[in-house]
Amino acid sequence: MNVTLFDTTLRDGSQSENISFSVEDKLHIAHKLDEFGIHYIEGGWPGSNPKDMLFFQKVREEKFRHARIVAFGSTKHARNSVEKDPNIKALLDAQTQAVSVFGKTWIYHVEQALRVTRKQNLDMIRESVAYLKKHGREVIFDAEHFFDGFKDNADYAMACLKAAESAGADVLVLCDTNGGTLTHDLAGIVKSVHKAVKSPLGIHAHNDSDLAVANSIAAVMNGVVHVQGTINGYGERCGNANLCSIIPNLQLKAGYRCIPDENISKLTAISHYVSEISNLILNNTTPFTGKSAFAHKGGIHVSAVMRKPDSYEHIQPEKVGNKRRVLISDLAGKSNILFKSSELGLDLASDKERIPEIIKQLKEMEHEGYEFEAAESSLELLIKRMKQEYPNFFTLQGFRILNEKDENNEIRSEATVRAVVDGQEEHTAAEGVGPVNALDKALRKALIKFYPEIEEMKLTDYKVRVINARAATSAKVRVLIESSTNGKTWSTVGVSENIIEASWQALTDSISYFLMKRHQHKPLETS
Amino acid sequence: MNVTLFDTTLRDGSQSENISFSVEDKLHIAHKLDEFGIHYIEGGWPGSNPKDMLFFQKVREEKFRHARIVAFGSTKHARNSVEKDPNIKALLDAQTQAVSVFGKTWIYHVEQALRVTRKQNLDMIRESVAYLKKHGREVIFDAEHFFDGFKDNADYAMACLKAAESAGADVLVLCDTNGGTLTHDLAGIVKSVHKAVKSPLGIHAHNDSDLAVANSIAAVMNGVVHVQGTINGYGERCGNANLCSIIPNLQLKAGYRCIPDENISKLTAISHYVSEISNLILNNTTPFTGKSAFAHKGGIHVSAVMRKPDSYEHIQPEKVGNKRRVLISDLAGKSNILFKSSELGLDLASDKERIPEIIKQLKEMEHEGYEFEAAESSLELLIKRMKQEYPNFFTLQGFRILNEKDENNEIRSEATVRAVVDGQEEHTAAEGVGPVNALDKALRKALIKFYPEIEEMKLTDYKVRVINARAATSAKVRVLIESSTNGKTWSTVGVSENIIEASWQALTDSISYFLMKRHQHKPLETS
Repeated sequence: MNVTLFDTTLRDGSQSENISFSVEDKLHIAHKLDEFGIHYIEGGWPGSNPKDMLFFQKVREEKFRHARIVAFGSTKHARNSVEKDPNIKALLDAQTQAVSVFGKTWIYHVEQALRVTRKQNLDMIRESVAYLKKHGREVIFDAEHFFDGFKDNADYAMACLKAAESAGADVLVLCDTNGGTLTHDLAGIVKSVHKAVKSPLGIHAHNDSDLAVANSIAAVMNGVVHVQGTINGYGERCGNANLCSIIPNLQLKAGYRCIPDENISKLTAISHYVSEISNLILNNTTPFTGKSAFAHKGGIHVSAVMRKPDSYEHIQPEKVGNKRRVLISDLAGKSNILFKSSELGLDLASDKERIPEIIKQLKEMEHEGYEFEAAESSLELLIKRMKQEYPNFFTLQGFRILNEKDENNEIRSEATVRAVVDGQEEHTAAEGVGPVNALDKALRKALIKFYPEIEEMKLTDYKVRVINARAATSAKVRVLIESSTNGKTWSTVGVSENIIEASWQALTDSISYFLMKRHQHKPLETS
Repeated sequence: MNVTLFDTTLRDGSQSENISFSVEDKLHIAHKLDEFGIHYIEGGWPGSNPKDMLFFQKVREEKFRHARIVAFGSTKHARNSVEKDPNIKALLDAQTQAVSVFGKTWIYHVEQALRVTRKQNLDMIRESVAYLKKHGREVIFDAEHFFDGFKDNADYAMACLKAAESAGADVLVLCDTNGGTLTHDLAGIVKSVHKAVKSPLGIHAHNDSDLAVANSIAAVMNGVVHVQGTINGYGERCGNANLCSIIPNLQLKAGYRCIPDENISKLTAISHYVSEISNLILNNTTPFTGKSAFAHKGGIHVSAVMRKPDSYEHIQPEKVGNKRRVLISDLAGKSNILFKSSELGLDLASDKERIPEIIKQLKEMEHEGYEFEAAESSLELLIKRMKQEYPNFFTLQGFRILNEKDENNEIRSEATVRAVVDGQEEHTAAEGVGPVNALDKALRKALIKFYPEIEEMKLTDYKVRVINARAATSAKVRVLIESSTNGKTWSTVGVSENIIEASWQALTDSISYFLMKRHQHKPLETS
């Protein structure tokens, strides 16, 4: 059975607290959604702000393969005639094939928010839908707060749907606007509605109860054929229903058809793409598309996972374009190390006598507080060094960092570094906003003379974790650094009781890794 | 109807990719869970690693109000007699009242992973459970991969449950180990099982399909009375079922009783507490407990929201200890500030003209990255300083810290501090394991001459959090310091791009707070 997908990342998704798309961002995302196989792309609310209207002007010049662009707006205001209602006018001015128009169905809202009579509200729905249909639009009717409305007064909520239906609405979308409905209740209500109306039904779920995906699927199983949601579940408060979870659940497990089969493997890519454009870090734990979604920890079962992955994974990660990862943890065993090494392109199988020594070293380091799960580049360097395959690019003679706070309450951090490359010493100094930043700058300054390519790499993330917090200021810290060049990223780690030393280890590993990959004439691999 | 809660944050939750709890962290969390009203706390897998065994040794000395501590392990190995099985032995050695023992129920796993016959597996379950019961343990049987097993061969999966039941298991927990089961299927299977066995049933869901919360609730609605999950849904891959979503859904909406009613309002606090201890940033969008869970955006609805919040919110935020945020409003702070001040014993109500100024200052500081939720002592100092009620115990003229790493790879940190008390200057120096430790020591050395009571306080926790990680080594950091004296603890905060400066702020606040409380001749309050 086919399910129609309606994406509202560009409208409801952009209501996320930390998202602010430019018009160009929106156009880029719209094309990705189209290529992916989304049927409807809601682009914005032209009546609410000029930026959204600009999007609709620009998007008209673009070609889409399958997707229809949708403008969003409310039913007309009670005191306006439909012809003169500015919101309805803006909807038409957006010049989209389809429009999504929302109306009230909960008496509480009709009387308290709109402050109109029940009959007036029904007229507003009917007239708005009919007028938009008359202008040739495909009309998607969003029944706002439908589930609360139905629980409060089912007859009235149904009367609103029927008003839209009789006026010619193409789809009736049941909205759980405040996200509060439990799956069981929602399924029951959808079932009743499905019996009572002829029009195709849609679902629009929010995640306030942590149930948006389950509710969307339950709606489909009870007769809904049109599903609204956003990429990565972006949206106001706790977000909208996550299409990246709904699509694989429906298509790979429940036998529905949402997008072309061959596109399912683009799921992870589109999820990461939208998260990049949104400038939000995608949680590793995100189902289906997160970095940890298929990560296996713990030595004892890794050999079983490798032998029979389908016995530990609910789907093959490749199906959604993700991949299996084996985490090196303190349960590290031989099969973990072998798998990881081959993943890193290191041949350890032919070098078996070194494996016990490598495992011993890793266990000692993990005991000290190192963690290689999030710092695979440090692991790669470590193994290469143990195999004596690491070319030494530079030797560090030492550093000195001075932090000073004077009577005027100003703080200064200055670092000096002495590095030797090919027998030539370089002694440099730099100031920074803090001790680690000063050290980073001084180190780069020392090395750039020999390796100008360092200019191309930059540090993109810096994390500090106190390991044994209870030891207070003499606690051990673990520093994780992420670096990138041309969109490729890699991560390194350092551990010490001294935060400067830990940062130094991660910093130097980061540069060493970059130089090693560069001088192998190989493209950098994402760690 | 009552639902029993089984928390596995300390066991399954600690399998999260970025979580690594110390034994002390685990003890702290266990007490919070107990106070919250959790019935069972799974502490670890004593047979798998020495750290978990240490936890069980230590936890024996602690008193809990309601909760039972649970040790986790597998059924015996096929080739061992149950008396000599090292895993069963470790389970008993943990000396807990209750144990959680997992067994296979999916033939595929029995034959491919365990490589034993179907009959052998049934014997292993029966003998392990019976032996643990004989030793007086409450036995929670975890039926691993139960839903896959049931779909594959329902008769065999049921035979496994019945083996555990006949051997005396107290609860049979149906595990969706790989998190792949859709809610609809899971509900149907739970229903069948419920008809076929007499024992109480439990559910253990994972979030790989983004359905763990819905699946747990569906299980309860179909007869399950014991729910396993973790705080914030922490756990391997995509995490376990999030108790922080399950509890309010069941208790506030579906009429079940999980924890004492008066404790529901501690939900947000426990969610944030565990996230702090885990050193993971809690997503703002987390349902119920996230910072944005009740945040209202978009000017047009705000007045309606303020007038009739229940028409836009699925529950009252206060019920779960969270709060409404109006993102554009500056009305937000006043009642909070008054509430918090009276909580801290500060009389602001009689000092109304200062409130706007205090709110303004707090907003600016929060914007800079300060967070007072976990550092109320800094907040108290701040308000006292603004009210000019803070006696100045010392003035700091400045400090200097030198970090040096030489050719022998040794690193040294030395700090000098100049402090003035009653017009008398003290200039001291100290070495430390890192720059902050050196600073701490030098500062104490300078002040102890004037305030010998400083000897009685010590720093007990030190946390560093990078706020804007993407700025890499020039990112802003927030330092939280916890101090204690005679079992009373208090927490202070500092924020800066320079970690030394941030640590300095938190350190000096910590000492100032101690001196202030001491000189008020009042006992120190726990923050």
